[in-house]
Amino acid sequence: MSSSLPDIKNNFSDWYNEVIYQAQLTDESPVRGTVIIRPYGTAIWENIRNRLDERIKETGHQNAMFPLFIPESFLKREAAHVEGFAPELAVVTYAGGKKLEEPLVVRPTSETIIHYMFARWLTSWRDLPIKINQWANVVRWEMRPRAFLRTTEFFWQEGHTAHETKKEAEEEVLMMLKEYVALAKDYLAIPVISGQKSEQEKFPGGEKTLTFEALMQDGKALQMGTSHLLSQSFAHAFDMKFQDRNGQLAYPYLTSWGVTTRLIGALVMVHGDQKGLCLPPKIAPIQVIIIPIFKKEEEKEAVMNSANAVAAALKKAGIRVQIDTDDQKTPGAKFYHWEIRGVPVRLEIGPRDVAQKKAVMVDRLGLGKDIVSVVDEIASTIQKKLAEVHTAMFNRAQELQQAMWYKEEKLATFGKKLQQEGGFYQTGWCGDPACEAKLKEFQASTRCLIEEKTFKTCFACDNPSKQDVLVAKSY
Amino acid sequence: MSSSLPDIKNNFSDWYNEVIYQAQLTDESPVRGTVIIRPYGTAIWENIRNRLDERIKETGHQNAMFPLFIPESFLKREAAHVEGFAPELAVVTYAGGKKLEEPLVVRPTSETIIHYMFARWLTSWRDLPIKINQWANVVRWEMRPRAFLRTTEFFWQEGHTAHETKKEAEEEVLMMLKEYVALAKDYLAIPVISGQKSEQEKFPGGEKTLTFEALMQDGKALQMGTSHLLSQSFAHAFDMKFQDRNGQLAYPYLTSWGVTTRLIGALVMVHGDQKGLCLPPKIAPIQVIIIPIFKKEEEKEAVMNSANAVAAALKKAGIRVQIDTDDQKTPGAKFYHWEIRGVPVRLEIGPRDVAQKKAVMVDRLGLGKDIVSVVDEIASTIQKKLAEVHTAMFNRAQELQQAMWYKEEKLATFGKKLQQEGGFYQTGWCGDPACEAKLKEFQASTRCLIEEKTFKTCFACDNPSKQDVLVAKSY
Repeated sequence: MSSSLPDIKNNFSDWYNEVIYQAQLTDESPVRGTVIIRPYGTAIWENIRNRLDERIKETGHQNAMFPLFIPESFLKREAAHVEGFAPELAVVTYAGGKKLEEPLVVRPTSETIIHYMFARWLTSWRDLPIKINQWANVVRWEMRPRAFLRTTEFFWQEGHTAHETKKEAEEEVLMMLKEYVALAKDYLAIPVISGQKSEQEKFPGGEKTLTFEALMQDGKALQMGTSHLLSQSFAHAFDMKFQDRNGQLAYPYLTSWGVTTRLIGALVMVHGDQKGLCLPPKIAPIQVIIIPIFKKEEEKEAVMNSANAVAAALKKAGIRVQIDTDDQKTPGAKFYHWEIRGVPVRLEIGPRDVAQKKAVMVDRLGLGKDIVSVVDEIASTIQKKLAEVHTAMFNRAQELQQAMWYKEEKLATFGKKLQQEGGFYQTGWCGDPACEAKLKEFQASTRCLIEEKTFKTCFACDNPSKQDVLVAKSY
Repeated sequence: MSSSLPDIKNNFSDWYNEVIYQAQLTDESPVRGTVIIRPYGTAIWENIRNRLDERIKETGHQNAMFPLFIPESFLKREAAHVEGFAPELAVVTYAGGKKLEEPLVVRPTSETIIHYMFARWLTSWRDLPIKINQWANVVRWEMRPRAFLRTTEFFWQEGHTAHETKKEAEEEVLMMLKEYVALAKDYLAIPVISGQKSEQEKFPGGEKTLTFEALMQDGKALQMGTSHLLSQSFAHAFDMKFQDRNGQLAYPYLTSWGVTTRLIGALVMVHGDQKGLCLPPKIAPIQVIIIPIFKKEEEKEAVMNSANAVAAALKKAGIRVQIDTDDQKTPGAKFYHWEIRGVPVRLEIGPRDVAQKKAVMVDRLGLGKDIVSVVDEIASTIQKKLAEVHTAMFNRAQELQQAMWYKEEKLATFGKKLQQEGGFYQTGWCGDPACEAKLKEFQASTRCLIEEKTFKTCFACDNPSKQDVLVAKSY
């Protein structure tokens, strides 16, 4: 049975929409700009969340829960902040049967309400650092919604910290960026490039934004998450002061950092293929699917016994395994069903396999088909295979990224290719926003600054380049 | 150091507000009707959630994520439902800089949006049962907000299921009620009474509501959670049909069930005392606090070595332990600090204890002070103590409930006492809502029906009692 998905090479956008629907990650929602995240999509998010939550706690942060609604006046306290978010806000004007005196904004992010609380909690340098994280839903009204990538409501974690010195705040921002990059590499099997955003692309109200970006198979960049050095602007806006070690009143240095359900979109677009999803083993809700195969009813018992024994052994070893017991479907239909869902490893068990105490092991990535023993060492066989699949997925994605990474001097030369074929373009930049704005003609933008200086002049003008910059089309 | 809390006996309400603030479960929020749930409160919720989530999954449900916003028209499809929730709704009328054509309601509960999706997903009896759960924030505008008990925004899980037969739906409703009761008993150490709600007290739009209720120390009942047999009204409202085993079109039977952050309020009000919180070990964020005690600087190293070794041994055994290393506080101030936070077990380690390889073990409940060996068996000593504390807490709460459980014939006799002293009143009821309404004079209501028939006549009139009913004041 061949895939009914749109062509991934020529019609990536339709392929994306169709694969997340057919794999039951999402369904259309009757509420404009939102999606329903179905159990399979939710399970992926839970796996990402659980891992990241563990790391957030191990790096000294604590979770807390702040209100969904923020008084409109709070957002206005930081001028750049409200300017950045105003067009995207959803506003509650009626509640409890009455018009509200002050409208409440549904949080687009929680800096303002959290900083208000930090100001309450902070009196002395001994109260610092404050290191808080929140798992929450946020709302930013979207004109062109796209499941996981841009939706009116999305799910994320937002870390918020306050520090005594700028140096400490900078260390925090870097530490969390490193955690994110490690999550991408070790759990999502996604290679990323990280660096600083330009002034135009940074967080509204912050001083410096670090980003990590990945390349999708269609050549577009996806911003995977950000870590912001907010410095003191919000501290001033919320009158957040403390007595420092010298007894003087001082303002703390703030940071915030977050990743969202967008990471699921990244998984789909980095790893998927013509057959459907291809999930990295560490976050796959089902790591191994067992397909019992038999034609005659009298073969069923022995096959099912073997399947159950294998499943039990894998479960005991902490492997997420499921047996497809659907008696309405042919094995071929089952292969198709689980391929589109991207389950990393399939085990086929038929009557002949049972007799030989074997199973056929096939991986979703196409590394090869093996006959494996189902006695004793099956769990370690699978664990080895899952690790192999993870590495192969990361390497494949990295090769793609390298193959589409170009070093080019002038936009006039590479602009057309960038627009038509996508890819990462490393080039020189004078730092002038006017030059940066010229990228719009090619539907591109700066993704991040690169700590290299390969080029003498700017990609757009003849002034000297300050440093390299990564340019791409993006989601 | 004595407690600075209001008197728990004479001023329970102020005691409650003050203890959750001083123990840093919550802080006041600048958004009317909401609270900030601080890290210590959030950690309690996470412990409750993790356990319940495990059970929800083990009983065959899958998590999913549905939108925060619900079109106003959806709520109106089920007449009783919208009537029940209309006064509590928060409504988004502006978004993305424009007035919305159809206002969006911030979900007060998700039946309508989830049922809309069920109708999309359901075609054949083979698709049944559908068993979904969602962890989410919901909003119900509160006129008299109270932290954890009634807040405009709260956190919960809401289970939603669809079944082929009414019998199956009834089994589901009962199964989840049982899970909740077990959670209360085995994790929260709270004895509860469960049963059916009266017609007046049931879920708007449902057929039958099962509740489980606990008695707080001030004699008021707290509804801990509910499990609803919705039957077919919502299925009709959302045109949710399937082809049954006979090829006929049929409507499924629906259920929903939920518990909220209110459970944290129950923990405070059932177990707390004049010294502060008293947390059941299984959900306590910190199960053991170690207080190193030394006067001279040269004693510090040996004491800290022992404290670290004990902490490492406990951590290894999966016990949540922390050492209080604050060098600004006296041991007495530390005792006070952790008592108000309800940490179940305290270990004191001083220079003499170190020499004897001992520690002083004190439990928060007051079961007794022990000198325990810190060699080898310390983890099992603590595990035994935590189990003992759990049982003692449950028994203490059960004794209180029994001591305040009265069997009374006539409201005219027990009404005054109920109003002044609280307690659970088991009495007879004819089933007439007019009689039920008379409880309002005494600020009371029916909590649930009881499967007994102790009384011949109704508590309010002379008509025969249909069955016993539990009456109480409530939160």
